[in-house]
Amino acid sequence: MDGSETRILSVGTALPGPLLDNAALARRFGMDEIWEQWIEAFIGASTRHLAVDLESGEVVSSLTELGETAARRALENAGLEPGDVDVMVLGTAMPDQLMPTTVNMIADRLGINEVPTYQLQSGCTGAVQAMDLGRQMLLTPGRRHALVIGGEVCAKHYDLSVDVKKLAPDELVNLLLFGDAAGAAVLTTDEAPQSLVIRGLMNRLTGLGRPPGQTVDWFGLIDRDSARQAVSEDYKAIEESVPVMSAEILRELLDDLGWAETDVDYLLPPQLSVKMTDRIVEELSVPGAEEVSCVSEISNTGNALPFFQLEQLIPQMAEGDRAIGIAVESSKWIKAGYALEKV
Amino acid sequence: MDGSETRILSVGTALPGPLLDNAALARRFGMDEIWEQWIEAFIGASTRHLAVDLESGEVVSSLTELGETAARRALENAGLEPGDVDVMVLGTAMPDQLMPTTVNMIADRLGINEVPTYQLQSGCTGAVQAMDLGRQMLLTPGRRHALVIGGEVCAKHYDLSVDVKKLAPDELVNLLLFGDAAGAAVLTTDEAPQSLVIRGLMNRLTGLGRPPGQTVDWFGLIDRDSARQAVSEDYKAIEESVPVMSAEILRELLDDLGWAETDVDYLLPPQLSVKMTDRIVEELSVPGAEEVSCVSEISNTGNALPFFQLEQLIPQMAEGDRAIGIAVESSKWIKAGYALEKV
Repeated sequence: MDGSETRILSVGTALPGPLLDNAALARRFGMDEIWEQWIEAFIGASTRHLAVDLESGEVVSSLTELGETAARRALENAGLEPGDVDVMVLGTAMPDQLMPTTVNMIADRLGINEVPTYQLQSGCTGAVQAMDLGRQMLLTPGRRHALVIGGEVCAKHYDLSVDVKKLAPDELVNLLLFGDAAGAAVLTTDEAPQSLVIRGLMNRLTGLGRPPGQTVDWFGLIDRDSARQAVSEDYKAIEESVPVMSAEILRELLDDLGWAETDVDYLLPPQLSVKMTDRIVEELSVPGAEEVSCVSEISNTGNALPFFQLEQLIPQMAEGDRAIGIAVESSKWIKAGYALEKV
Repeated sequence: MDGSETRILSVGTALPGPLLDNAALARRFGMDEIWEQWIEAFIGASTRHLAVDLESGEVVSSLTELGETAARRALENAGLEPGDVDVMVLGTAMPDQLMPTTVNMIADRLGINEVPTYQLQSGCTGAVQAMDLGRQMLLTPGRRHALVIGGEVCAKHYDLSVDVKKLAPDELVNLLLFGDAAGAAVLTTDEAPQSLVIRGLMNRLTGLGRPPGQTVDWFGLIDRDSARQAVSEDYKAIEESVPVMSAEILRELLDDLGWAETDVDYLLPPQLSVKMTDRIVEELSVPGAEEVSCVSEISNTGNALPFFQLEQLIPQMAEGDRAIGIAVESSKWIKAGYALEKV
């Protein structure tokens, strides 16, 4: 961690399509009320937005479109124009194409040009990695504003043709756990009244020798006929590890900053599922802190989700309030988190 | 550009499979000597290495494997152990999977842990972007060594079943232009005798409103049956733009550093193809500088290629010598380059 004063100036978010409740999913997949209750019991999410239309199967939003909208809202909330952006970073696990990169297609739509752009391939810690990178890139003199985006569109892997009755529980999870969305933030090193200073940020691979907790594959021209599995999760490993890792992240952030647990006013825990988030919050045990969660409404939206948490957090924070955000990547086990203070 | 003294301490590279000449490709695709001569005339490459075995069609090397080997060699050449690495960056257009990221799988094989890792999704400027990011991440106090990797494995898009006689010239190019490889470098902010100081580095999107010059798509679980084209190039746009952009990059690097053209001892031009590189070098017109190219031997290996150029350059540089490297991403038109000085 370094002592430079980077601030979150504003946040913006974007969701595709209509809000879909569990009954809508149950209807679409020909399932009954028991199944709805199973979702409630094991995942806990009530609603989500998807970039694919449940009836027609058509993709209604690309990550480029969602990223553009979220970025426009973040810029507007900061009172800035696209021309004020000095560096741009996107974190995603699901880019629209391999080339051109989605960050550059978003830049094109915003009218952003002649600045460095970066696209981080990353799982659930991509939003923190993007913030980290944006912050680091602002250390170069002359740069004032970093536009940082995170988001996922699962459409290429979201199988509407599947026979849900034949799915094992861990396959079913892929259909029910995720939502699509994008979020964005503007970071600055300028003095800015009523903004959130990033007091600390951590981002570290900790997966040595551990099998992946999640894999997401892509197919090319050649291997697209292959029957190999595209997405898989070791949900047990995730369930066991993420709460423990979250507690370690919290502890390390607090220790590094010399903050006590009682200094934490708001807690932004990982948002894998409602059930998992509940378990994590219990493990973290920071009774004085208010939990900021939105997985129940928008489900697990990967790298978009921290921006939705920040959007909820910002209007609640009073001067001097402190918040800790935590993210865990369970694909190769990355610990990430950040500490904010309203000044 | 900032004034911090980052140095390239060492380089390492890795190539898959055997060396394949044009005759080997002609044999495999059932083509004649005329075809071989067409390759020579329009592309100019004589040889390349591929991660797919031409006879069996099997993939013989992953990007993870190539990246590991290149990184091991770079570390060995720097006299360092994997445990000395403080931050790791991979730039690639063709990761092995979406999740886990290839950078983290390489880290796992090297035994690297408890450090930040980043994977940049990027076309032909990814090696420069990775250097840029590695350099920037070394600004955080306490970090000494950045391991920076670039590479491509085209196997998922390399179609051995294609009827070459039916291909249009621009489709044929995708079969003939590219090779597979990985390269790596160790960067440091430490004092290091006989090392190359990065005096300048540029990396900037310049594609506003311009259609992509290259697209590379990926397929997921759902859309893999689609007949949509996976890879395409606007070779005319590339041919027209890249030499001009290269000259602009050279001019800007020189102007920013206050270097004259006569100060440049070595020139590392973009390596799209032998023919294109010849055209670019002509456009650049730096008669006093020695060209460092390797596209004729290993073909266009994307983000691996700058490391092969550096590997050739390093033993040639004498104290005080200066070199300029140039890279252009023609997917969404990114200008990148770097200026080195041996101290």
